[in-house]
Amino acid sequence: MSFISTQSYKGTRDFYPDEMRFRRWMFGKMRETALKFGFQEYDGPILESFELYAAKSGEELVNEQLYHFVDRGDRKVAIRPEMTPTLARLVAGKFNELPKPIRWFSIPNLWRYEKPQKGRLREHWQLNVDVLGGERSMADAETLYFAHELIRSFGGNAHLDMRINHRGLMDQFFGSLGLDAERAHKVTKAIDAKDKIGPEKFHQWLKDLGLGATEISQIDAFFNEGFEAIRSKFAGVAVDEMSQLFDRLQDLGLKDSCRFDPSIMRGLNYYTGTVFEIYDTHPENRRAMFGGGRYDNLLGLFGKNQLSGVGFGMGDVTLEDFLRTHALVPDFSSALDVWVGVPDRAHWKSAQEISRTLREAGLSVGVSLDEAGFGAQIKQALKLGARFVVLFGEEEWKSGKVVLKNLGKNEQTIVDAADVVRVIQTQ
Amino acid sequence: MSFISTQSYKGTRDFYPDEMRFRRWMFGKMRETALKFGFQEYDGPILESFELYAAKSGEELVNEQLYHFVDRGDRKVAIRPEMTPTLARLVAGKFNELPKPIRWFSIPNLWRYEKPQKGRLREHWQLNVDVLGGERSMADAETLYFAHELIRSFGGNAHLDMRINHRGLMDQFFGSLGLDAERAHKVTKAIDAKDKIGPEKFHQWLKDLGLGATEISQIDAFFNEGFEAIRSKFAGVAVDEMSQLFDRLQDLGLKDSCRFDPSIMRGLNYYTGTVFEIYDTHPENRRAMFGGGRYDNLLGLFGKNQLSGVGFGMGDVTLEDFLRTHALVPDFSSALDVWVGVPDRAHWKSAQEISRTLREAGLSVGVSLDEAGFGAQIKQALKLGARFVVLFGEEEWKSGKVVLKNLGKNEQTIVDAADVVRVIQTQ
Repeated sequence: MSFISTQSYKGTRDFYPDEMRFRRWMFGKMRETALKFGFQEYDGPILESFELYAAKSGEELVNEQLYHFVDRGDRKVAIRPEMTPTLARLVAGKFNELPKPIRWFSIPNLWRYEKPQKGRLREHWQLNVDVLGGERSMADAETLYFAHELIRSFGGNAHLDMRINHRGLMDQFFGSLGLDAERAHKVTKAIDAKDKIGPEKFHQWLKDLGLGATEISQIDAFFNEGFEAIRSKFAGVAVDEMSQLFDRLQDLGLKDSCRFDPSIMRGLNYYTGTVFEIYDTHPENRRAMFGGGRYDNLLGLFGKNQLSGVGFGMGDVTLEDFLRTHALVPDFSSALDVWVGVPDRAHWKSAQEISRTLREAGLSVGVSLDEAGFGAQIKQALKLGARFVVLFGEEEWKSGKVVLKNLGKNEQTIVDAADVVRVIQTQ
Repeated sequence: MSFISTQSYKGTRDFYPDEMRFRRWMFGKMRETALKFGFQEYDGPILESFELYAAKSGEELVNEQLYHFVDRGDRKVAIRPEMTPTLARLVAGKFNELPKPIRWFSIPNLWRYEKPQKGRLREHWQLNVDVLGGERSMADAETLYFAHELIRSFGGNAHLDMRINHRGLMDQFFGSLGLDAERAHKVTKAIDAKDKIGPEKFHQWLKDLGLGATEISQIDAFFNEGFEAIRSKFAGVAVDEMSQLFDRLQDLGLKDSCRFDPSIMRGLNYYTGTVFEIYDTHPENRRAMFGGGRYDNLLGLFGKNQLSGVGFGMGDVTLEDFLRTHALVPDFSSALDVWVGVPDRAHWKSAQEISRTLREAGLSVGVSLDEAGFGAQIKQALKLGARFVVLFGEEEWKSGKVVLKNLGKNEQTIVDAADVVRVIQTQ
């Protein structure tokens, strides 16, 4: 017989208890901060109909990255690669009943078939935060404010760089260059790659797309002029919305963390207004941490009235990289408050009674699953990272005492059995 | 264009915020109680290799219920239908490093292709609790004790009926009837169905399997005699283990909730020792709520030394039925502590500042996303189930005051803006 591998499926992670405590802590902070901002949590099934993604998720995702198959009942189903289509389905499904504006969040696991590499896995978790309805600049500002406060809630003083653009402004700009939608889309791809490939390759790419020297110099100017110059040249709804947003971000004390950046395009097809990406300024972690934007047309797929929304998704792998870069990860090695030793069958009941009292005080307690002497019990407790050990034998028990060992301080005292909880709580 | 359906995939649930608050509360209690008992949380990816289930999960599950497909890299993968194979893979993967005994839990979502009906869905969540290693009767007793305390932690005084059997005893018994493994397996299926189909059909089934009148009367006797008679007839390891377990359950004060029941067989192939099912005694909810047992041979699949384990899985749908039957579900309609109104653009910053103070005090706060008068703000707050509304206009703000409305009591007071947190916390 050949043995089965203990490796997890390619591009996925196992969460052993240490890693799981980290994940719980990270998701707990996300949840706590989102609830404080009045966001409500939702979730949907991990399988969705294939067609939910076919319409809006973009060709690369559907053709190359989507996990999909036909079920035993001949339904074409997909494992969710992103959460926004599920959000849109839920909102459309109870469109009339749901109080608006809607502030929702979720922390789903998502799947994409990709070549695993640093920061990119086939399964990852992603905090999704969306505001549907409300005045646009208020909702946009609050979404960015929440993103900022969320990162802050993890501690430290990391300086964030929040880069903001507007799809409507880009449409105006491409229009001024005489580009139709198809060519504009191709130029967008070049802009997306601009920072990675450098100016020479960027110019060559634009030439290859048939752009002349005038247009290329207009593009260069657009990317170098700054918001004030662009505002006067491209007056209209888009720059108005951005001006209002920047004013509000200033009110929130975020002026130094936010800036206009016309190179921010975002890959997903459904963005129509504000788009943004949030960068860490630490020299070892200069990738975009996460991003999002405003979408106007998602509910139309379900035949519902439109409700403009804004949102972002923040992946757990990227956030973990950020937290480790800034040394913001606490120590998760302690798994247990107290280990209670069992000397023999006759005193098992007493050990259980002490454990019950400790649990009622809110402590996490492991009772030994073997009868063993003090030395063996302490060894077990150390392996599990327990903070305290409670030990006793016939001698201690007869006089109503137990041995309490503080493993962190390596101190041992004899205390009244009735007093263990109090003594532990004061150490 | 035809619209996309807003229905979730067949046999699955959407979790809108109300349902999600319920789920969070339920999982939170599970987690809290498991941690108090010294269990540590783990998780694995939702996709696993097909072969992980092919070996041990039972024919019906693999052939009829498993979701599986071939990925873009020609790997045969499955969506996990149960968690125990993942647990075994993780334990085998770090067999030497992990401190033993192992007390682990997980709350995964699991998938089975079944005809959706009450209590059975294609996607459900399941608390999985396992103890690997340790003295058998101590580990078995603690597992049952934990199950009992977990149900108790949800409140109420529901009386549980914990029915216990031992696979080893059943092997002895089938041996005494002269049944080989294959026929014993067929008789097992009849025993599994015994309570549902009644004695006549049960006897007919046994006859159809070729059992004679003597054997059938031996089977009837076995099921009616009680543990004391069986203990003397089938002396050996199995009844010894059961006696020790019953003694320990008595020490834990669970004597009245536990009994020997030879009809408990459990479907999964991998159980080898103690097996149990836990029933609610409420007349409207008399199905097995959940069950589990002891398994000895799971790690052998991975070429590792054996480590005997015991565990159970408790599904969220069954637990929800139990909680609703006993009216143990709290009210989850309030989504928000405070709604803060925004009178106009000039005072948006002030509304944000008040909100920040409220959040820092740990409250969940929604700031209005529209500028609107008092009436419209109160309406919004009521729709969201907020407990309080904070309102102000130029007049109040000039004198450092705000209007605080307690929506539950329908009381309205004017308070100092600096005092809002304190006033809310004392109501």
